[in-house]
Amino acid sequence: MEIPKELDPPARLLMGPGPSDVPPRVLRALAAPTVGHLDPYYLEVMNGTRRLLQHVFRTTNELTMPVSATGMAGMETCIVNLVEPGDEVLIGVNGVFGGRMCDVAERAGAVVHRVEAEWGRVFSPDELRAALDRHPKVRLVGIVHAETSTGAHQPLEEIGALVRSRDALLLVDCVTSLGGAPVEIDAWHVDAAYSGTQKCLSCPPGLSPVTFGPRALARMDARKTKAQSWYLDLAMIRSYWGAERAYHHTAPVNMTYALYEALRMVVEEGLDARFERHRRHHRALRAGLEALGLSYVPERSLPMLNAVRIPDGVDDKAVRGALLREHGIEIGGGLGPFAGRAWRIGLMGASCTRRHVSALLAALGGQLGGAGDALAAADATYGRG
Amino acid sequence: MEIPKELDPPARLLMGPGPSDVPPRVLRALAAPTVGHLDPYYLEVMNGTRRLLQHVFRTTNELTMPVSATGMAGMETCIVNLVEPGDEVLIGVNGVFGGRMCDVAERAGAVVHRVEAEWGRVFSPDELRAALDRHPKVRLVGIVHAETSTGAHQPLEEIGALVRSRDALLLVDCVTSLGGAPVEIDAWHVDAAYSGTQKCLSCPPGLSPVTFGPRALARMDARKTKAQSWYLDLAMIRSYWGAERAYHHTAPVNMTYALYEALRMVVEEGLDARFERHRRHHRALRAGLEALGLSYVPERSLPMLNAVRIPDGVDDKAVRGALLREHGIEIGGGLGPFAGRAWRIGLMGASCTRRHVSALLAALGGQLGGAGDALAAADATYGRG
Repeated sequence: MEIPKELDPPARLLMGPGPSDVPPRVLRALAAPTVGHLDPYYLEVMNGTRRLLQHVFRTTNELTMPVSATGMAGMETCIVNLVEPGDEVLIGVNGVFGGRMCDVAERAGAVVHRVEAEWGRVFSPDELRAALDRHPKVRLVGIVHAETSTGAHQPLEEIGALVRSRDALLLVDCVTSLGGAPVEIDAWHVDAAYSGTQKCLSCPPGLSPVTFGPRALARMDARKTKAQSWYLDLAMIRSYWGAERAYHHTAPVNMTYALYEALRMVVEEGLDARFERHRRHHRALRAGLEALGLSYVPERSLPMLNAVRIPDGVDDKAVRGALLREHGIEIGGGLGPFAGRAWRIGLMGASCTRRHVSALLAALGGQLGGAGDALAAADATYGRG
Repeated sequence: MEIPKELDPPARLLMGPGPSDVPPRVLRALAAPTVGHLDPYYLEVMNGTRRLLQHVFRTTNELTMPVSATGMAGMETCIVNLVEPGDEVLIGVNGVFGGRMCDVAERAGAVVHRVEAEWGRVFSPDELRAALDRHPKVRLVGIVHAETSTGAHQPLEEIGALVRSRDALLLVDCVTSLGGAPVEIDAWHVDAAYSGTQKCLSCPPGLSPVTFGPRALARMDARKTKAQSWYLDLAMIRSYWGAERAYHHTAPVNMTYALYEALRMVVEEGLDARFERHRRHHRALRAGLEALGLSYVPERSLPMLNAVRIPDGVDDKAVRGALLREHGIEIGGGLGPFAGRAWRIGLMGASCTRRHVSALLAALGGQLGGAGDALAAADATYGRG
């Protein structure tokens, strides 16, 4: 056969909904020599990764680890291990990812009750309280902390306390928020959560950090049926991450190296400093985007994901194509009802710098007109910051 | 928190059941700059990866791609997409991985008929024919081409023709054989197969190449139920790999780079040359191991996985520990009934060289006594080769 040509990926600024730019340190770690998945050295890296993830998730949960697949597999891991056929679950749907949680739960045999909100809006504790009152047998509540399809930032403090007061577990999607905004697993009474590596942790895609608290473990221990997925069955995976080190599957060794290094960088920067960095650049980007006449989709925006409406008469694909081709900048299109109607601009991890903000505003302003004003608005915000 | 120390993996010769040594070219590809999973450049890499995998699987199957998780997820992908609850399946069990196939199929709601053989033995076409006669409603036959727990090498030519003559699909596990011994998807009438990256392809673990033929696609198209796994649902994944490029999950971009490069190296070497290399070093290793008094577990050994009985009185863990600590050589222990009773010595991909054979025989001979004779036997075999 004709051998396909040598790899030569173009340089990009990754400012979509993930993946984000990966720092050279993390790429170097990714390419460190592979060792066996039961090598004593790798077991040390696993232990270090768990400690780092516990720190970033703000939890003491012993069962904290990366699932050996991407973020959606983290969602599925949580659901297939915490839900048994016939269990009633309540899921908040205000975007694509809440909808997916319903799909995954239905495939696991759950009876799914949806509580819906307009895309871009978040849920109030009262809405969830009323839904739980309507469905008192609900055993698990699923909610998205950072809805990547709309940029909506769901507050969880009161919802965590509410769900804890019922006989239900709280499952949280923090794929896009972890490492870029506060995620307080223990303080917010979150029983299980999943995330991704390719957003604010700035590691390549491929793993899904998850964490399970004592109530989630008790639920798993009381299961009457096996998890329907062998690959994601925590009853076995726990033995590999635990003292037994029982072989389950061949772990993605190099991806774990990369996550370990990415987490070290998060901890070196400090969580508070990192969150402040995300807020600061978000404020400047927002000022610039609003100066371009763009309005935000969500009422309460995530700092790391800026979903804005595409102005009437502007060609979505032409603009994104020009950004990519002429500036090497990737931004995201809309999903579902927002396809062709919204852009999703990420400021995640290593992609959250003043250089990214300026480059994006210059390029997008060049397409839409008004680059100078947008940059001035951003600069003024930095000056005040 | 105290930040865990910098990554510094030890140099190993990986001669267990996988992962195998990863060539510097592949590690370099792994660390190439991340681009988005819908970037036109990444779509090109996906297309190239498919062409390369088609070549290595020896198939024209359009649905040929890596699943975004390790080899066991490839097994699960095949089963959850090809089996519906209540379907009868027949699975050959002569080691750990046949047993796992049963477990995965049961979780998918299949009625599982096992045909069993002693560990280390392979199945004759007559045994499978008799089993199919006993269970005429079987819709899928699962069999392991390269049983990594025993080193047994299952011939498939006649079995493929047999299964094709019934109304059943043939599913083949070629995790350990692909790229190291002939795997003829089309010529052998294999309807679906899964493999891993970390064996004879010498790519880090993390992806599972799969391929599906027209009869498998027809089975999927005729499903009455959704696949129970969202993450592994080919009805959606096909749209991402097909012309629609519909977003399903964030693909593991850098792992795809590494697989692409590893496959390029396979094609550059040439499949026939690569298979001959595996046979040549296997013959030499075998001569050396037998000179050490070790006997092979399987009646028909794979070239890339050499399972030998541990002599009475020899301490499995002490020997493997000394090889790792003092020589940096990893070999595998036994699984299931072979735990403590067999070693599994891999000669896979980049770990299949004369240097590996000599280093292993020198080190193991040093532990057991007889290194000189073992090396002489290997050298004599090379001389004849």
